[in-house]
Amino acid sequence: MGRLFVVGIGPGKEKYLTIEAREALAASDLLCGYTTYIDCVAPLFPEKETYTTPMTRELERCRHALSEAQHGSTVAMVCSGDAGVYGMAAPVLELLPEYPGVEVQIVAGVTAALSGAAALGAPLGHDFCVISLSDLLTPWETIEKRLRCAGEGGFAVALYNPSSKRRGDHLSRACDILRESRDGATLCGIARNIGRDGEEKRVLTLAELRDTEVDMFTTVFIGAPETRLSGGWLVTPRGYRGTPSAAENGR
Amino acid sequence: MGRLFVVGIGPGKEKYLTIEAREALAASDLLCGYTTYIDCVAPLFPEKETYTTPMTRELERCRHALSEAQHGSTVAMVCSGDAGVYGMAAPVLELLPEYPGVEVQIVAGVTAALSGAAALGAPLGHDFCVISLSDLLTPWETIEKRLRCAGEGGFAVALYNPSSKRRGDHLSRACDILRESRDGATLCGIARNIGRDGEEKRVLTLAELRDTEVDMFTTVFIGAPETRLSGGWLVTPRGYRGTPSAAENGR
Repeated sequence: MGRLFVVGIGPGKEKYLTIEAREALAASDLLCGYTTYIDCVAPLFPEKETYTTPMTRELERCRHALSEAQHGSTVAMVCSGDAGVYGMAAPVLELLPEYPGVEVQIVAGVTAALSGAAALGAPLGHDFCVISLSDLLTPWETIEKRLRCAGEGGFAVALYNPSSKRRGDHLSRACDILRESRDGATLCGIARNIGRDGEEKRVLTLAELRDTEVDMFTTVFIGAPETRLSGGWLVTPRGYRGTPSAAENGR
Repeated sequence: MGRLFVVGIGPGKEKYLTIEAREALAASDLLCGYTTYIDCVAPLFPEKETYTTPMTRELERCRHALSEAQHGSTVAMVCSGDAGVYGMAAPVLELLPEYPGVEVQIVAGVTAALSGAAALGAPLGHDFCVISLSDLLTPWETIEKRLRCAGEGGFAVALYNPSSKRRGDHLSRACDILRESRDGATLCGIARNIGRDGEEKRVLTLAELRDTEVDMFTTVFIGAPETRLSGGWLVTPRGYRGTPSAAENGR
């Protein structure tokens, strides 16, 4: 019986791999994944066999990986960012009972909320929500409800899949919902191609974000009411009882 | 002028470092941090100078790191998990304008929500919230409100700082709030010392979690209503329109 690693590779470049992730890839006979992600890691291991499927054939990919592992191979299922956050860990584990004997290990990685936040400063320095705006498998009403709850709770928010080809207005609608509970001057950020070539980042207000076009390579950050700018960086302070100096005196 | 890296080292052991984090530590003259975290990485770089302060002296530590960088050193501020998520990136960036000329780089890492989730399966496979139960710098009423919003939004939840010496009932109270909108049979998980010696994990229901004692080395996961068990692993599916097979047909 073989093993299946579900590996989060971080945003793209080799330096964002954890040592554990690189070891799991090195130990594998076969690298499976979405074509774009395999292109990130395959050059590091030119001798490895690869199996790629396009974005919409994810379960086929999981079944292939599980089947190869069941036949004795050591397989890595490659995910961008983290293995679990909108990653392949969930579908692999859901299918696992159909492939008895396969040993699975989930290898965590730096998800886009963390890599994008680091590029912008510390927008997720206190409590936050991660929400996908893709309504491919989630009803849009559910997404709206979550945005509303995130706004009411005063959370900073990281938005994944902020744009889709089918519906280009997801981000505008998300901003409108957050405007119900948050000022238009709330500080936001967008991070594009972070950890890949063509890295871009920008700080803007919630009102500006509403009318900004983004693509699928972008992660969007909506600040909490407390989020501020410091030396050009977005910062959500860890405490709500004042400035660092106040905290310094209080602790 | 020097540089200051704010480095997320992941849960603890060297293998959870990203390559970028290891390179930032290697490039630094001085490693600053909370004693426990410095103990994780200092043995990898026995020749480096270190500066440690206890948990409550964080701003003193930031000021020392910024001051040393201002005087020309390359400094690493070491954070467990990610640099941004309840980490030192926020206070460092808040103080940065007082130390002109210091170049700061935030190095993301695998936060406990991701490493703990990987140990348990994929509890954060869809939208989720991260909430700290520490009321040291956040009023408890704010924390309660966020828990209530997270429950109403149907988010999976990762809880940081689930226990404190001063008040031992934070987790019970958090569970009571989530029970307002979520069944007692909701699947939850606890992950303790993940990525360190003495790693432990356990799957339990929300009703059981309410009466479970945890410590400050534990990250708690409260499943979404859709979270299920598969082959012993916690899984929050990425879609809400049925099983993997339904998604397979639908896409």
